[in-house]
Amino acid sequence: MSQTSTKPPSGTRDFLPDDIRRREYVMRVVRDVYESYGFEPLETPAFENIETLLGKYGEEGDKLIFKILRRGEHEASGTADLALRYDLTVPLARVVAQYQNDLPRFFKRYQIQPVWRADRPQRGRFREFYQCDIDAMGSTSPVVEAELLGAVSEVLGRLRFEDFVIRLNDRRALTALLDCAGVPASLQGEALVALDKLDKIGAEGVERELQSRGVSAEATQACLRSFVADGHDPADAGASLERLANLLQGHDAGTAAVASLRAILSLVASNGADARLRIDPSLARGLSYYTGAIMEIAVSDLPGSLGGGGRYDNLVGMFLGREVPACGFSLGLERIIVVMQERGMFPAKVSRAAVDVMIACLNDTLQPDALKLASELRGEKLRVEVFPESGRKFDKPLKYAVARNVPVMVILGEDEQQRGEVAVRDMQTRVQSAVPRDGAARAIADQVRLAGT
Amino acid sequence: MSQTSTKPPSGTRDFLPDDIRRREYVMRVVRDVYESYGFEPLETPAFENIETLLGKYGEEGDKLIFKILRRGEHEASGTADLALRYDLTVPLARVVAQYQNDLPRFFKRYQIQPVWRADRPQRGRFREFYQCDIDAMGSTSPVVEAELLGAVSEVLGRLRFEDFVIRLNDRRALTALLDCAGVPASLQGEALVALDKLDKIGAEGVERELQSRGVSAEATQACLRSFVADGHDPADAGASLERLANLLQGHDAGTAAVASLRAILSLVASNGADARLRIDPSLARGLSYYTGAIMEIAVSDLPGSLGGGGRYDNLVGMFLGREVPACGFSLGLERIIVVMQERGMFPAKVSRAAVDVMIACLNDTLQPDALKLASELRGEKLRVEVFPESGRKFDKPLKYAVARNVPVMVILGEDEQQRGEVAVRDMQTRVQSAVPRDGAARAIADQVRLAGT
Repeated sequence: MSQTSTKPPSGTRDFLPDDIRRREYVMRVVRDVYESYGFEPLETPAFENIETLLGKYGEEGDKLIFKILRRGEHEASGTADLALRYDLTVPLARVVAQYQNDLPRFFKRYQIQPVWRADRPQRGRFREFYQCDIDAMGSTSPVVEAELLGAVSEVLGRLRFEDFVIRLNDRRALTALLDCAGVPASLQGEALVALDKLDKIGAEGVERELQSRGVSAEATQACLRSFVADGHDPADAGASLERLANLLQGHDAGTAAVASLRAILSLVASNGADARLRIDPSLARGLSYYTGAIMEIAVSDLPGSLGGGGRYDNLVGMFLGREVPACGFSLGLERIIVVMQERGMFPAKVSRAAVDVMIACLNDTLQPDALKLASELRGEKLRVEVFPESGRKFDKPLKYAVARNVPVMVILGEDEQQRGEVAVRDMQTRVQSAVPRDGAARAIADQVRLAGT
Repeated sequence: MSQTSTKPPSGTRDFLPDDIRRREYVMRVVRDVYESYGFEPLETPAFENIETLLGKYGEEGDKLIFKILRRGEHEASGTADLALRYDLTVPLARVVAQYQNDLPRFFKRYQIQPVWRADRPQRGRFREFYQCDIDAMGSTSPVVEAELLGAVSEVLGRLRFEDFVIRLNDRRALTALLDCAGVPASLQGEALVALDKLDKIGAEGVERELQSRGVSAEATQACLRSFVADGHDPADAGASLERLANLLQGHDAGTAAVASLRAILSLVASNGADARLRIDPSLARGLSYYTGAIMEIAVSDLPGSLGGGGRYDNLVGMFLGREVPACGFSLGLERIIVVMQERGMFPAKVSRAAVDVMIACLNDTLQPDALKLASELRGEKLRVEVFPESGRKFDKPLKYAVARNVPVMVILGEDEQQRGEVAVRDMQTRVQSAVPRDGAARAIADQVRLAGT
């Protein structure tokens, strides 16, 4: 027999039943909340034509795309025509362009599907991971940003996160701050890379890095004054916004960005997301397609974020030829689950036993009745397993039932059958009792419900 | 702007909201039933190491596997190291080998995930499609086959299929029949290909094809006698089985197969799957890994099957080095949905509106209150959308609400606000009424529930 490795490919995982139950729990909450905000489900294929993806994520992103070899006679060419989905936003932009006549004027969709990136695998970073996206297409109103933030805040609240922070900024404000600091447009990309490291390397580090990237001493000092908090309470979003407004006075695009942030701020005060909100002028977000508001959610004990998003009014235009305003937010399923597991946030019901009743037979001739009783018990809405192998001793089924954490075991034996009874064992108390075969399903269902309380 | 094609890749589909709701409905039923039989969820990565898949599906299968190009410096080699999942059975076998110490002795798992095959796309056949698999590992008991058939029958029953037929055969019986008919082992594969076409080309066609494939005239006649029904009622599974037993008398493996089929038949009589069951000696099933019982479910108005499965006691051994008995069944999600749509079998609730209430503002200053009211309505378990753009006239939001089939629209205007009211419009009756802003959420919720009845 040939024996190949049985591990899943590097950077991917198998999800055993307990893993799936935790994932399903989180996805159920995400779906319920997204739907309560009027978002509708969408799914796209795992792979796209390769030209749909290339050139959308920047040079680094392009390198991380999994490419699929041509097939048949073209396989020998060694070239690719398809590629695995890298995020859910570019496929959405394609869908909006393709079905523009079938979709509502404001299309609000959610999408919970895996994406694949050929990143170097490391702790908490996988090559296959799920994104939970909401996006609203077709409107430039700040109501969109406010509703997105309301929805993701409510997801995290229902999952019992109590300490997350929403960082909010605007791409235009970022550019305007650099303009006002005297960083020339040609160096702004470099400057953002340096400023993005503020959390990691501190103000001195950023200062060194800005200068090494060619930003003048004067502009570097101006950047530090603009981007590094000046001692005011960062939790006071209103104060942060006024500070930003002062810095950007007289800069047209900057002033527009401040007005937009102000509108979002006044709206989130109405849906409960405001207590979490910080205006953070240093928030940059990597992806190049953002054009307006950008946002990110983080908790203190996880490096990086639980999710992020922003406005991208030009991306659909790359497929459609005319622009469609758009704004979205993506929650990272894996990162949420990592924190919830480390903090023990999953409710007990998530890890409950997968089976309510297991039926074992002491003899093959009793198996037909075991299957019949199983049907009756399923009619009582119970999850029922029939132990497939019969035998005089019931240590094997007993051991199996203990391992699977089954609360109630039913034993069918010849003696019981002759008396018109079945034996029912409470696996917790180990008390075994006889129940008349007629009406056994109802009696056992009552006992299971009792054992479950 | 570059404009690439916005269609999904050949053989794949985008699923718009109504599609997803239909798919979710079917998957919910599948999951509920599978869980009620004690099966637990499992998921595996979209791709596997390429050597895990190659050589498991036969020569034709290997050609249909999507292969993923190596990355980074190895991309130029034009070779593949990963491949997209072709079915859910081989990954399961790998998982059972990998986690043998963590899994219960009898591992019963279900798995609902997409698979990818580079088939030529045609009506109802896709390159990305979902399989809904249940498999039980670790037991050779016929209880396993009976429970699998019970579960898939119950799925179809709950989806209101009333006319499906389960065809049951045994791989060993198939070989034994060919032995008894005098077809030499070297020609049995060829003979099966011919016999598999019985439905399509009739007895005469099979006769011609057997002879053209080198089967002797005598053996051909014997095959036809064995495989073509002799006028007995095919719905009488007991009679079919006795006929098979007679044909295989004296053939050891054949007799074992008959005993196994008899055991399955006696068990399914207890869980309700028997009324659908036919013993069909001509059922072959393509995949090479089957070793015992094979089964298939079909309805008359769909060529091919809704699903199929069988026993494959050797596959795990290809990864583990020791054999683990296994048996499974796979329902094809797409084929079920095709039939349900053509027959109009989806309940009305599946296509209900995605939103219960839409709120529109006549003025931007009312937007904060719109978001607040939306939060209150979500607290009443309603799905609420805020129309993002305000305006004096409400023909735009009205048109949008009609298009989205929203039952109730709430209008916030300055006059109403001054009176401490909001306007509520029943979209069906077009009756508009004023509701006090205090307690509006409860009143609107009552109205929505009324409109929904």
